[in-house]
Amino acid sequence: MIIDCHGHYTTAPKALEEYRKRQLADFGTPRHAPAKGAVAISDDQIRDSLESAQLRMQRERGTDLTIFSPRASAMGHHLGDAAANRFWSEHCNELIHRVCTLYPQNFAGVCQLPQAPGVRPDSCIAELERCVNEFGFIGCNLNPDPSGGYWTDPPLTERWWYPLYERMVELEVPAMIHVSGSCNPNFHATGAHYINADTAAFMQLLTSDLFRDFPTLKFVIPHGGGAVPYHWGRYRGLAQDMGRPPLGELLLDNVYFDTCVYHRPGIELLLKVIPADNILFASEMVGAVRGIDPETGHHYDDTKRYIDSIEWLGAAEREKIFRGNVEKVYPRLAPRG
Amino acid sequence: MIIDCHGHYTTAPKALEEYRKRQLADFGTPRHAPAKGAVAISDDQIRDSLESAQLRMQRERGTDLTIFSPRASAMGHHLGDAAANRFWSEHCNELIHRVCTLYPQNFAGVCQLPQAPGVRPDSCIAELERCVNEFGFIGCNLNPDPSGGYWTDPPLTERWWYPLYERMVELEVPAMIHVSGSCNPNFHATGAHYINADTAAFMQLLTSDLFRDFPTLKFVIPHGGGAVPYHWGRYRGLAQDMGRPPLGELLLDNVYFDTCVYHRPGIELLLKVIPADNILFASEMVGAVRGIDPETGHHYDDTKRYIDSIEWLGAAEREKIFRGNVEKVYPRLAPRG
Repeated sequence: MIIDCHGHYTTAPKALEEYRKRQLADFGTPRHAPAKGAVAISDDQIRDSLESAQLRMQRERGTDLTIFSPRASAMGHHLGDAAANRFWSEHCNELIHRVCTLYPQNFAGVCQLPQAPGVRPDSCIAELERCVNEFGFIGCNLNPDPSGGYWTDPPLTERWWYPLYERMVELEVPAMIHVSGSCNPNFHATGAHYINADTAAFMQLLTSDLFRDFPTLKFVIPHGGGAVPYHWGRYRGLAQDMGRPPLGELLLDNVYFDTCVYHRPGIELLLKVIPADNILFASEMVGAVRGIDPETGHHYDDTKRYIDSIEWLGAAEREKIFRGNVEKVYPRLAPRG
Repeated sequence: MIIDCHGHYTTAPKALEEYRKRQLADFGTPRHAPAKGAVAISDDQIRDSLESAQLRMQRERGTDLTIFSPRASAMGHHLGDAAANRFWSEHCNELIHRVCTLYPQNFAGVCQLPQAPGVRPDSCIAELERCVNEFGFIGCNLNPDPSGGYWTDPPLTERWWYPLYERMVELEVPAMIHVSGSCNPNFHATGAHYINADTAAFMQLLTSDLFRDFPTLKFVIPHGGGAVPYHWGRYRGLAQDMGRPPLGELLLDNVYFDTCVYHRPGIELLLKVIPADNILFASEMVGAVRGIDPETGHHYDDTKRYIDSIEWLGAAEREKIFRGNVEKVYPRLAPRG
């Protein structure tokens, strides 16, 4: 079985986006009422949105299960306040729950958190609990920069985040560290902000003792770990110069990288420098890059092809990357197939 | 001849740092006077600071010439105002000029610019002209985030920067896009802010038509291009999805990457995915990572060794990377050796 640990519901029916537009249009006006309201989407609309996209691609690419969460770029924690973002997150997560209920063999749920800039992450615990306990979700997406590109909240290693981590550990759910859109014109969302957040988060973890306080806390760093594997020598050297333990000892019981790297040389580098125990298969399909690479004739984000083509990768490592590590990092994932 | 395009005077005599400390301690107090003051450093102190460090390592590693600029992490554009940063930049650049005068075969000068957050880059033109016309400098370091980690100034592709670009083009000097220290606790300077700035800058260039306006403007993106080569498929795909020209056509007459990547797999990836015409040899010695890699027994930043070990790299490509491209990108570099 092949599990893709990183998929977002980027093809959700338009009514979802329209809800958010209405909510944000009212935001800060007298019309703004802190009410959840409704999103009218039928089961058939959900089926249509998936059959022609994620489900078709699962079949075409030979993957079985996608760990599925709301569209990351639409989380937009910087756009609303805590109350507006709570209702928005609830709707997004409820829709993921419906997807997972309709297609339990194809999708496992991960939730968006109702973060907001400057608001303590404690405010996200209730929604995390609801998603895990009531919906059977197996993880969450944690935005390290709710400001959307100005980085005004504390680093992930500060006690500010600890109450959320405590609950994550109790619930046995990991977080994928994943920013949302950028309102900073310096940062293109999927081309700079995403990748930079991955790199910044890793360096925060490298310089802290967070995992001494939370030995079982687990983070997935998406997009192949940002710049980290490419600069693995730099990170090993920086840790060494600071008198920190070797990276394996310091971080690799807690930090994992996905394989959302959209060309073969990048995937090969990732597989060379990061231990197979710390790599989780992922494509972020349907996501940031949707085209077909003229150099290969295949979708840029068909990452399974790149991994399949690495002839020196052993069968045991391949099994870990495609399945075993996901089951280890997401212990609530129900046995399948 | 082997030219290292990226070295900073990280070993400058203490009197330089003490000047800046005094200047910043007075800043905002009644003692603060907008006077340049003096930095007392003898030629022997300069010789001592280099003989045991950069010059020794040039000899040991078999490199000949370093394109040399003030310490990047100490530029600290976010720490002073335009006037304070002007005096600070002048002192730093004058010291580089003395280095290049004492060792003309070993160093060629690149200047720090007196940027400040929210201040138009026009304010840097006088110092750029002084350094190029009076000191014979061949380039400048351009900080894309004078705020030191909050990214509050316009992207590099905005008209805000154009007067500086106009002068750079007239003077035929390139800029290395290089941030300074970070005052944002989310970003470790050399482990996150540096690398992220490289990536953000590249994506700004990808989404703009800056080089239509400045066809001969040249930028060097340091630290191996941040995350860019590792995610080259992502960038090719994003450009394609946006209907932009292929990256080669769009950027590669104007954008160059250095080789400050501190392990062999990273260097190999860089050489595989980026055309040899766009790669400039560099080590950033003595810089961010000073230790010896226990896996190799050599300094992490001895990047020449990694390149030397890539057996499939042709002699013509090697010559371009070690010398030819530097002479192309820095046309004011006087012929040597």
